[in-house]
Amino acid sequence: MRDEELSAIRDSVRALCANFPGEYWRELDRERAYPTQFVEALTKAGFLAALIPEEFGGSGLPMRAAAAIMEEIHASGCNGAACHAQMYTMGTVLRHGNAEQKQLYLPAIARGELRLQAFGVTEPTSGTDTLSLRTTATRDGDNYIINGQKIWTSRAEYSDLMLLLARTTSREEVQKRTDGLSVFLIDMRTVKDKGLTIRPIRTMMNHATTEVFFDNMRVPATSLVGEEGKGFRYILSGMNAERILIAAECIGDAKWFIDKASAYAKERAVFGRPIGQNQGVQFPIARAYAQMRAAELMVREAAELYEQGADIGEEANMAKLLAADASWAAADMCVQTFGGFGFAEEYDIERKFRETRLYQVAPISTNLILSYIAEHVLGLPRSY
Amino acid sequence: MRDEELSAIRDSVRALCANFPGEYWRELDRERAYPTQFVEALTKAGFLAALIPEEFGGSGLPMRAAAAIMEEIHASGCNGAACHAQMYTMGTVLRHGNAEQKQLYLPAIARGELRLQAFGVTEPTSGTDTLSLRTTATRDGDNYIINGQKIWTSRAEYSDLMLLLARTTSREEVQKRTDGLSVFLIDMRTVKDKGLTIRPIRTMMNHATTEVFFDNMRVPATSLVGEEGKGFRYILSGMNAERILIAAECIGDAKWFIDKASAYAKERAVFGRPIGQNQGVQFPIARAYAQMRAAELMVREAAELYEQGADIGEEANMAKLLAADASWAAADMCVQTFGGFGFAEEYDIERKFRETRLYQVAPISTNLILSYIAEHVLGLPRSY
Amino acid sequence: MRDEELSAIRDSVRALCANFPGEYWRELDRERAYPTQFVEALTKAGFLAALIPEEFGGSGLPMRAAAAIMEEIHASGCNGAACHAQMYTMGTVLRHGNAEQKQLYLPAIARGELRLQAFGVTEPTSGTDTLSLRTTATRDGDNYIINGQKIWTSRAEYSDLMLLLARTTSREEVQKRTDGLSVFLIDMRTVKDKGLTIRPIRTMMNHATTEVFFDNMRVPATSLVGEEGKGFRYILSGMNAERILIAAECIGDAKWFIDKASAYAKERAVFGRPIGQNQGVQFPIARAYAQMRAAELMVREAAELYEQGADIGEEANMAKLLAADASWAAADMCVQTFGGFGFAEEYDIERKFRETRLYQVAPISTNLILSYIAEHVLGLPRSY
Amino acid sequence: MRDEELSAIRDSVRALCANFPGEYWRELDRERAYPTQFVEALTKAGFLAALIPEEFGGSGLPMRAAAAIMEEIHASGCNGAACHAQMYTMGTVLRHGNAEQKQLYLPAIARGELRLQAFGVTEPTSGTDTLSLRTTATRDGDNYIINGQKIWTSRAEYSDLMLLLARTTSREEVQKRTDGLSVFLIDMRTVKDKGLTIRPIRTMMNHATTEVFFDNMRVPATSLVGEEGKGFRYILSGMNAERILIAAECIGDAKWFIDKASAYAKERAVFGRPIGQNQGVQFPIARAYAQMRAAELMVREAAELYEQGADIGEEANMAKLLAADASWAAADMCVQTFGGFGFAEEYDIERKFRETRLYQVAPISTNLILSYIAEHVLGLPRSY
Repeated sequence: MRDEELSAIRDSVRALCANFPGEYWRELDRERAYPTQFVEALTKAGFLAALIPEEFGGSGLPMRAAAAIMEEIHASGCNGAACHAQMYTMGTVLRHGNAEQKQLYLPAIARGELRLQAFGVTEPTSGTDTLSLRTTATRDGDNYIINGQKIWTSRAEYSDLMLLLARTTSREEVQKRTDGLSVFLIDMRTVKDKGLTIRPIRTMMNHATTEVFFDNMRVPATSLVGEEGKGFRYILSGMNAERILIAAECIGDAKWFIDKASAYAKERAVFGRPIGQNQGVQFPIARAYAQMRAAELMVREAAELYEQGADIGEEANMAKLLAADASWAAADMCVQTFGGFGFAEEYDIERKFRETRLYQVAPISTNLILSYIAEHVLGLPRSY
Repeated sequence: MRDEELSAIRDSVRALCANFPGEYWRELDRERAYPTQFVEALTKAGFLAALIPEEFGGSGLPMRAAAAIMEEIHASGCNGAACHAQMYTMGTVLRHGNAEQKQLYLPAIARGELRLQAFGVTEPTSGTDTLSLRTTATRDGDNYIINGQKIWTSRAEYSDLMLLLARTTSREEVQKRTDGLSVFLIDMRTVKDKGLTIRPIRTMMNHATTEVFFDNMRVPATSLVGEEGKGFRYILSGMNAERILIAAECIGDAKWFIDKASAYAKERAVFGRPIGQNQGVQFPIARAYAQMRAAELMVREAAELYEQGADIGEEANMAKLLAADASWAAADMCVQTFGGFGFAEEYDIERKFRETRLYQVAPISTNLILSYIAEHVLGLPRSY
Repeated sequence: MRDEELSAIRDSVRALCANFPGEYWRELDRERAYPTQFVEALTKAGFLAALIPEEFGGSGLPMRAAAAIMEEIHASGCNGAACHAQMYTMGTVLRHGNAEQKQLYLPAIARGELRLQAFGVTEPTSGTDTLSLRTTATRDGDNYIINGQKIWTSRAEYSDLMLLLARTTSREEVQKRTDGLSVFLIDMRTVKDKGLTIRPIRTMMNHATTEVFFDNMRVPATSLVGEEGKGFRYILSGMNAERILIAAECIGDAKWFIDKASAYAKERAVFGRPIGQNQGVQFPIARAYAQMRAAELMVREAAELYEQGADIGEEANMAKLLAADASWAAADMCVQTFGGFGFAEEYDIERKFRETRLYQVAPISTNLILSYIAEHVLGLPRSY
Repeated sequence: MRDEELSAIRDSVRALCANFPGEYWRELDRERAYPTQFVEALTKAGFLAALIPEEFGGSGLPMRAAAAIMEEIHASGCNGAACHAQMYTMGTVLRHGNAEQKQLYLPAIARGELRLQAFGVTEPTSGTDTLSLRTTATRDGDNYIINGQKIWTSRAEYSDLMLLLARTTSREEVQKRTDGLSVFLIDMRTVKDKGLTIRPIRTMMNHATTEVFFDNMRVPATSLVGEEGKGFRYILSGMNAERILIAAECIGDAKWFIDKASAYAKERAVFGRPIGQNQGVQFPIARAYAQMRAAELMVREAAELYEQGADIGEEANMAKLLAADASWAAADMCVQTFGGFGFAEEYDIERKFRETRLYQVAPISTNLILSYIAEHVLGLPRSY
C-alpha cells in the first residue's frame, strides 16, 4: 500500500471521528454506555472490516492500514476498545474456519449485521497462563456442552458472536501441553439465558468488560473452528495482529496527549509567560514525543513484517511494549502539564488517562512481554 | 508527644475507619457524593480539631499527631480530602485572627457546628502565581464588596466558612509585590445567592471541587483576618502545615497500596505459584516500600521541626515531593500487580489510584517544589 | 543500497574488528594511546572514506552504509571515536569547498595520506552557544591571522588537517546573528609551533581530546572554505550526518552490552542456577534490547531520509537522543549484570561503560536536543 | 551523642580532609596507588578506631559518629574505601573473639600498628551465595590448613590481618545449611609466600582489590575466632554495620556531587546566563538533593537503631539501597551538569563518578536488597 493511500485512509477516519467529539465520549463514560453510534459509523465506513478480504465483502486492506485506522481513532480522542476486537478476532475464522463458516459469518460481519466482538479466553484462575484454563466443551452427539467461566470478556453484551477457547480433552489425556484446547464460534443470541450468563464488571474506564458463565451451554458441533484440540495454536496465531492494533491505538493516544499538552503549554500563561517556556514543562513533552516516534517506527516495522508473512512475535511484542509505555508516559506528562485542569472531566484528559493505562496490562502485561523477549529473543532461561 | 500516645491515636483512627469500608467509598465515588457520615465521625472523635488548642475546645495535639491521623485515614483505604482543610485552614485564624474571631469560630469549628473547609486562593488565570490574583475586596463603609472568581475551591458546597484571599490594594499602588492582598473569613451561609455562586467541577475523583464566583458580594468588615494588605504572608505561613498533612496522606496511600499488593502477590497463583515469587512482581513492591519509608522519615522530620517552630519550608516541600512520588509509584505498582483486577471497581485500587494522582499537582506541583529547592535551598537562580 | 550489500559491509567490518580484541583496546586505554593500527586498517579497507564520492577516490557509499560501519565497529567492542570525524568532517569540504580544495584534499584523505580528524568549533566560554565564539580570523593580504582558543578538539594531535570555525566579522557588524563566521581548512603541519599549540586533556576515557590555542597563527587565504561569513550554515549542515553516525555507534555499543550481558546471565550460576533465570536480571536485559531496537529504527529512518536529501534535523536529533539513551541504559544494565566483574578491566565492560557515557553530552547534549524538539518540532517557545 | 559533638567530629574530619585535595587523589588514581598518607592521617586522628571501645584503646564512638566520619570523608571529595573495612571488620573480633585475641589485636589496630583491612568472604564461584563457598580449613594438630580462593578481597596488599571465612565441616556433614563455616583472623605477614598468594585486580576505580589464593596455607589454631562452625552468623552480624557505613559514604558522595553541580550551575554561563537558570539543569540538581536528604534520614535512622541494639536488617539494607541510589543519581546528574568538563580528570567528577558506581553492586547488590525486603519485611516468597 502506498503512503498516499494510507494518508487518504487516515483522513477519512479523522473526518468520521470529528463527528464524535469529547462530549460524546464523556457522556458515555459517565454512564458506562456503549458507543453504538460510533461503532455503526465505523462499520458503515468499512473500517472495521479492514482486514476481511474483499471476496468476503471486506475492505481487504493490509495491516498497516488497519493499524492506521486504530491509531487515527485514538489520535482523534475517540476510543476503539468497543470494536477493535472485531478487526482481529475474525482472523481466526479466516485462517482456520471452513468454507461454510467463512461464507456464513465473514460477509455478515463485514456488513455489520453480525458483531464478533467477544473473545473468551482468560479465566479468573488461569490469568495469563492460558494453558491452565478450565472451561470444558464436551461432545454430545451433534452438540458440544460447555461449562466454565471466562473473565475480562469485553463487549460480550454488545456482540452477537463470541470466539471461545475451551478444553475438549483433559490435560491428563494430551501428550503436548498445548494440545486439547479447541476454538468455537458461538452465536450468543441462541444461548442467552440457556446456559449463558453475562455479568458486567465495572472498571476504571468505560470498557464494557464482563464475566461470562457457561452452565451446560449447548452449542451445535458446527461451532467448532478448525480441528479439535488445535485451538491454542489458532488463538496464538491471531495474537500478533491484536498486539499490533493495540500498539497502534497507543500511538494514537500518545499523539493526542502530546498535541493537547503542546497546545496548552503554548497558550496557558502563568507568571507572565507561557508555561511551555519552562523546560520543566517542555522537556517532558519533547521526551514523550521522541519516545512515541520511536515506538511508532516499531509498530510500522511489525505491521510491514506481518504483511510479508514473517514470524513477528518479537516485533509485535516489542511494538506493544514500547507503544504502551509511550502512551502512558504521554498521558502522565499531559495530566501534569494541565495541572488541576488535567483532572477536570471537561478536558477529556483524565478520561484518556484512565483509558490508556489499561494497555500496560492488556492484552498482555509488560512483564510477560519482557519474559518473551528474554526467553525467545535473547535465549535466557524461562523465569517462571 | 511520646510514641505510645501516637500509637494510641493511630489505633483509634484505624478503629473509626474500619466502619467505612471500600463499599462506602465506592458508592460515594460513583455518585460523586460527600462523605458526610465519615466527616461527622471524625469530627465527633475530635480528630479534625487536632491542631486547635485546648483553650478553644480543640484537641491541642502536635503536628505529628495530626499527620498520623491523616496517614491512618489513608492507610485504611479512606480519604481525608473531604475534610483535611479543616485541620490546617483554621491555622490562619488561630495565628492572625483577633480575639473575637478566635472565640467566635474556633470552638464552633472544634465542636463541628461550623465547617471551615473552603480555601479560596487559586484563580483560573493566576494558577500557581498567587500574586497575580484578580479578585478584589473593596471597602465600603462597614463592609467589603468582593468581586472575582476562584477555582479549585474544594468542598465549598459542604462548608459554612471560606478563607478567602483577595486584593484590597491594586498592584500598581503597592510597593512590595507581596503587599495589597488580604484574608477574609467569609460566612458563606449569609451570602449564598447574594453575590456568591458555587459551580461544581466534575473531576477524575470524588473531590467536591468547585469554581466560586463573587458578584458584588458584600461581607462585613469584621470578616477581615489580621491586617489589611498582609494576607499573602498569612496564607504562606499556613502552607507548610498543609504540605505536611498532605504528605502524611500520601504516606498512608502508599502503605495501603503496598499492603494490598503484598497480600495479593502472596495469594494469587498463576503458572502454578504465587505471582509474588516473580522478581518482576516482588521487586517493584519492595522498591515502593523503601521509597515510602524514606519519604515517611522526611514527613516525620518536617513535623518535628514544625513543632519546634523552625522554618521548615525546605522540609515541608521535600516531604510533599517525596511522599507524593512514593504514593504515585506505589499506586502504579499496585495496579500493575493486580493486572486486570486493578481496574475493577470492587477492588478499590483503581479509586485510590485516581485519588492519589492528584498529589503530584496539588496543593503544589512537583515543578514548583523543585524550583523552591533549587532557588531557596541550593541558591540557584530563579528559572521563571 | 540493498540489504544484502549492507550485510556484506557489516561482515567485512566485523572481520576487520576481530583483529582488534579487548586486549588491544585495554592497553591503549591504560596509556591513553591512539589506536593507530586500527585507524590504518579501517582506512586501508576504505571504510573511513565511505561517504567520499568515488570521483574523489572514496567508496561513495550511502549514509546507511556509513552508519552500519560505525555500528559494527562498536558492536565488536572497538571504538570509532578516534576516526569517526574523518567520515563526516570532510562533508563540509565536499559540499562547500571549491574544485581545487576538493581535488587537493579529498583523494588524499580517501587514500589515508591526509587525516582530517580535527573539528575546531567549541570554545571554553561558548559551550554549546556556537554563535558566541570568540576565535577570530583576520584577513591580512593573502593570509588570515587567527587568534583564539578551542576546546574539546578531539584527535588534534593525530590529525593533519583541522576544520576550524572562526569569526571573520565582529558580531556588532553583522546583520544576522548567524553571519560573520567562516570555515577554514587548516593544514596543521604547517603551523605547528608557529602559532598553534595543542594541549591534551586527560579524560575518563581514551578520547584524545585537546585544547587548541591560536596565537597569531597565519594561514593562507586559500584555507577559506566557501564564502566568508557563511561558515555557521556550513557547519550546521554537517551536523546531521555527525549525529546519525554517532547514534549508530551508540546502537553498536548497546548491542555489545546486551550480547555480553545475555551471555553472562546464561552461564553465570549463583544459588544453583543461572542468574539470567532471575527476572531482576533478565528483565533489564530485555528492556535494554527493546529500547535499543526502537532507537535503531530511528537511526535507520534518519539515515534513509538523509539519503533522500530530506531535512532531517528532527530525525537526526531524535536518533542521537534515543540511541545515546539506549547505549547508556544498556551499559548500566551490563555493569549491574556482571556485578563485581563489571568493574574489572579485563572484561572490557567498564571501559565501554566509560566510553558510551560521553554520548549523553557529545556532540550535542540531551538538553539541547529536547530544546530542539520542543522548539522546532512542537512549536513551543524557546526556553533559554 | 549530642548533635554538637557530632558536628565537632564532622568539622575535624573536614579539616583533615582539606589536606588531601583532588590532586592527591588524581595522582593515586592514575597509578592505582594506595592512599597511605591519608590512611595514616585518619588513623592518627583516631577516626579509624571510632568503633573500638575505649578499653581497647579506641575512640569508643557510637555508630552515628562513625557514619559521620565516613560521610564527611566522601563529602570532602576523598575516598574511604581504602580503610573503611578497618572500622567494621574488627567488630567480629570484638563481639566473638576471646579475651586474648581482643587484647592482642584491638589496641594495636587502634594505634595503627596493625591494619585489619582485608575481609575474605566472596569466592569466584559463590558470588553472593556465601553458603556455597569452597575454601576449606582443616584442623591439623595446633594448626589449620587452608586451601581455596577468594575474590574481591580489597586492600589485601595493604593489610596485615585478614578476616577469613572458610569451611571447617563439609556441607554434607552439617545439619543446618548455615553451619560448618568458621572465621579466622589471619596474620598475613606470617604466611606471605607460604601458601598465600595475592593477585591484584585492576578495576575501573582505584580500589586495591585482589584475588587471594590459599595453597596449604598453615595458620595456628589460635587464629580461630569464636566457635568452630558458627562463622556464618558472626559474619552476618557485622554486615549491618558495614551497610550503614557504606551508606554514609554514599551520602557523602551525593553531597559532594550536589555541591559541585550547584556551584558550577551558578557560575557557568552559556547563552548569556547561568546554566543553572535552566530548569533542565536545576531540576535534576534539586531532585538529587531531595533524594539524598531522604536517604540521609534513613542512614541516621539505621545508625540510631543500631546503637539501641535493635535488629536493623531492614533499615541497614534500605539505607544502603537508598543511599547508593542517591549517590549514583547525583553522580550522573553532576556529569551531565558539567557537560564535557565532567569527563576531564582535573575536575575530579569523573573519578568520583567511577568510584560511586560500585555501591550499586558492593558490598551487596541492589537486587539482593530488594529480595531481602520482599522476603523478610513484606513476607513474599523467596524468588531464587
